[in-house]
Amino acid sequence: MAATHNRNSESDQQQQAELKMNGHRESTLKGAPLSADDEWTILERVFRVLVDEGYLGPGTHEQPVVTFEYPDDLKKLIHFPMDEQTPCSAATVERIVRLVLQYSVRTGHNHFHNQLFAGVDPYGLTGSWITEALNTSQYTFEVGPTFTLIEDAVIEKCLRLFEFGEGDGILCPGGSMSNMYAMVAARYRTVPDVKRTGVANLAQPLVVFTSEDAHYSITKGVHWLGIGLNNLIRVKTDHRGRMIPDELELAIRAVLDSGRKPFFVNATAGTTVLGAFDDFNLIADVCDRYGIWLHVDACLGGTAILSRRHKPLLSGIGRAQSLAWNPHKTLGAPLQCSVFLIKERGLLHECNAAKADYLFQQDKFYDISYDTGDKSVQCGRKVDAFKFWLMYKARGSDGLEALVDNAFDCADWLHGQLLQRAGFRTVLEQFQYTNISFWYVPTWLRVATPDQETADWWQRLYSVTADIKERMVKRGTALVGYVPLLHKGIGNFFRMVVTCHPRPTRATMQYIIDEIERVGEELKPQQNGVASFSTRC
Amino acid sequence: MAATHNRNSESDQQQQAELKMNGHRESTLKGAPLSADDEWTILERVFRVLVDEGYLGPGTHEQPVVTFEYPDDLKKLIHFPMDEQTPCSAATVERIVRLVLQYSVRTGHNHFHNQLFAGVDPYGLTGSWITEALNTSQYTFEVGPTFTLIEDAVIEKCLRLFEFGEGDGILCPGGSMSNMYAMVAARYRTVPDVKRTGVANLAQPLVVFTSEDAHYSITKGVHWLGIGLNNLIRVKTDHRGRMIPDELELAIRAVLDSGRKPFFVNATAGTTVLGAFDDFNLIADVCDRYGIWLHVDACLGGTAILSRRHKPLLSGIGRAQSLAWNPHKTLGAPLQCSVFLIKERGLLHECNAAKADYLFQQDKFYDISYDTGDKSVQCGRKVDAFKFWLMYKARGSDGLEALVDNAFDCADWLHGQLLQRAGFRTVLEQFQYTNISFWYVPTWLRVATPDQETADWWQRLYSVTADIKERMVKRGTALVGYVPLLHKGIGNFFRMVVTCHPRPTRATMQYIIDEIERVGEELKPQQNGVASFSTRC
Repeated sequence: MAATHNRNSESDQQQQAELKMNGHRESTLKGAPLSADDEWTILERVFRVLVDEGYLGPGTHEQPVVTFEYPDDLKKLIHFPMDEQTPCSAATVERIVRLVLQYSVRTGHNHFHNQLFAGVDPYGLTGSWITEALNTSQYTFEVGPTFTLIEDAVIEKCLRLFEFGEGDGILCPGGSMSNMYAMVAARYRTVPDVKRTGVANLAQPLVVFTSEDAHYSITKGVHWLGIGLNNLIRVKTDHRGRMIPDELELAIRAVLDSGRKPFFVNATAGTTVLGAFDDFNLIADVCDRYGIWLHVDACLGGTAILSRRHKPLLSGIGRAQSLAWNPHKTLGAPLQCSVFLIKERGLLHECNAAKADYLFQQDKFYDISYDTGDKSVQCGRKVDAFKFWLMYKARGSDGLEALVDNAFDCADWLHGQLLQRAGFRTVLEQFQYTNISFWYVPTWLRVATPDQETADWWQRLYSVTADIKERMVKRGTALVGYVPLLHKGIGNFFRMVVTCHPRPTRATMQYIIDEIERVGEELKPQQNGVASFSTRC
Repeated sequence: MAATHNRNSESDQQQQAELKMNGHRESTLKGAPLSADDEWTILERVFRVLVDEGYLGPGTHEQPVVTFEYPDDLKKLIHFPMDEQTPCSAATVERIVRLVLQYSVRTGHNHFHNQLFAGVDPYGLTGSWITEALNTSQYTFEVGPTFTLIEDAVIEKCLRLFEFGEGDGILCPGGSMSNMYAMVAARYRTVPDVKRTGVANLAQPLVVFTSEDAHYSITKGVHWLGIGLNNLIRVKTDHRGRMIPDELELAIRAVLDSGRKPFFVNATAGTTVLGAFDDFNLIADVCDRYGIWLHVDACLGGTAILSRRHKPLLSGIGRAQSLAWNPHKTLGAPLQCSVFLIKERGLLHECNAAKADYLFQQDKFYDISYDTGDKSVQCGRKVDAFKFWLMYKARGSDGLEALVDNAFDCADWLHGQLLQRAGFRTVLEQFQYTNISFWYVPTWLRVATPDQETADWWQRLYSVTADIKERMVKRGTALVGYVPLLHKGIGNFFRMVVTCHPRPTRATMQYIIDEIERVGEELKPQQNGVASFSTRC
């Protein structure tokens, strides 16, 4: 493949490597390491670099989304091994930082739509910088007085938003952990003795239900918690990716017939690929009938709760016993900011407490119910609540709602455009969330009649999808993910995620359509019959 | 108790609340919310606040360690509930931030010795600010090219440091998670089918061994992983807190006799309270004899590996199958930075992989062995490696060694002073790590002969310890933790932790001794017989 304007040529690489070496040389020859007091000036220096290079503001769209290098090439550009013996100068540290920035992905770029997260909310980033600087843990009021009350406020707010009554909650290092918290709590509620005896001697193995479109963290959790993948049932979904409640009920009956114990149903608000919302009311009806714990993985879709227009997507979610929501996804709180909610107050503590007396001394001089650390499976716990709290304080409910509505509007508009524009096809006819799934069929791949769209033709389209992405990455023009949905018999399609930050516009949506079309057309096989796209085809 | 100079009087509180209200009023009356572009200026503003208030530098010792308020009082000073509707001005955000800072604990203060962590390394903080701004996840090379190779470099370096050969590893959200990773991997290696079947149908329940001085995360992990607390054996320790290898062997034999299966021994490098190091060679010998996985929780003590003088404490650690080390403890990498190492390369992936095809597409255009996310139980994973990597790049092995040696030297000097100074008693005769455990017996509590140190007298000393702490907290003069060691029949004593940041000196050590003595003397019961200390006495 020909070098593009963003791809460094070999001589560029050499120059870079030389620069790097000069940096290292400087550290021993002229730049002196800083004194303990002066060391702190590095923050000012790097702050300036972040500003100048457009990382702290909306200017990043003038830069490539990524300057891609293959791993082996990147290793030539940055000296990764940790083999330095002596301290280096501030100038050298700055040079290293600049190199790392140069080859990192700009997730805050207007044309980054590759993950369920993208750019950060500036107030969220402010919150995270403060907590990093204050460097404390969330386990006791003693070392985190403000942050304890801030986490309480976030939990309290989320309980109200999701109609979880007088429940409880905790901030977790990600949705996978939140989902495990749910399973652990449900298991304890179902068989309280399990904390003491483990699951080895249970009369009936415990069984978890989730949909085939649900997130893989349920699988990992089932393994970790000793439940075993044989005891995980994947319930069928409809064509939009929503769990079919009747199928759930059939699955529960089959498990009961087999002598095992259904104890946990995971429903999803916003599936990872198609952005589907299960019908929480119907699923809650089934769970109620059989006395099974209902958890909703709303890591992605929970953000809709902030919008009066879109929160009906979450209708019935308040009937669940527990819930996970990640403000670090489309809402733009910096990674990690993940909320776990549970309806039964006290259960988290009862279930998880180990009563370490070196940390949770019973004779403290303040009300130790504010020491919330024993609710957690972690000991030290990063302060994650402050980011979201500060976002809320700065924007208010109106401000956050506007961000969410804008993301929905842009995604909806994009979906509409894709339905109209020649060569584009959406995976779903209807818009359902800010994940938009589609293909682009270049003119040179278009056929006259549907019956010419053979299995081979589809395989080619799947390959072209990956090829378009590859070319966009290498040029740094856009990052849009592609995914297959194998259990539905579908190969690669684009899954473009529209997030709240950086604020999407119709123009940034239009850009992606145009860019994909442009790149797709370029991939036209050459006259001599040799395809210009990769060997995957 | 009388108000101290740091304790806000009621009128101060009112003034504060008014200030806060003015801030809120301003947001609606005069300060306009910022435009999307201008929002980013909040970072510059808050950066200045952090500099001015001494959070980014060694100046914090001129401020109180904490301005303590009881939870209910703090709620009057800061409006925690999230009930704002409209966006506010930058000035209001700044005011909120200033309030939060004012009532947060300064862990970076010279007189903060309350936890196993304290202030941050400025280069570590630089790294964390950058990763927060770049906001990406550690799961694929695609969205974290630089950070993938940086995590690899950190793992590689740690494998060499701890003599873990060609092993593997991952960065975790804390040591509790690392310890769970170890148990999950060991369980999978012992009974590979466990991933599929769970632990419900195992012929023999699996049993974990740890010492009675070890961290409580083992307890929590045993619960979470479905092993059950009945299958956790706490092995006796000697007076210094070190696991007794013969007791371990006896415990293993007893478990074998009971028909259960020993599969995991957790040894500790630097126990949480006394800072004890188990004898890894002797314990490895026992594990080898019975074919049991040896894990070392070196979350605290692993930092000694960076010092040629002190790494003999870790002798034999390379014989373990897995290891956890937290550079976020005494070394000063910002929370969270926790390394998990495992000797068998490939096992982490084999054990934890769920092969999500939306993320780990098999037809990517680069070598997908660089997509390390499927080794993890998490999906999205915060970039934690960069902090430590940048610290290493900036300081080199010499610079880090100097920090570690300085912390040891100061702790050792402190221990020596405590042995000599009237009224002070150390819990251990010998210095063993930078946790220093001691009591102060005020002159008014001293007795003439050892036989007068009755059980009641000791109870009083335990209470006085808590009282001294309370008074120091309320004055904001110092934060030093106290802990009991109930399984050794010992009540509260000070556990002072000497960390690398902010750089301790003999003067800062001396200050703590003087301050504890001063406060202890103040607590003398008044002439009328009513003690001035709290009701705990």
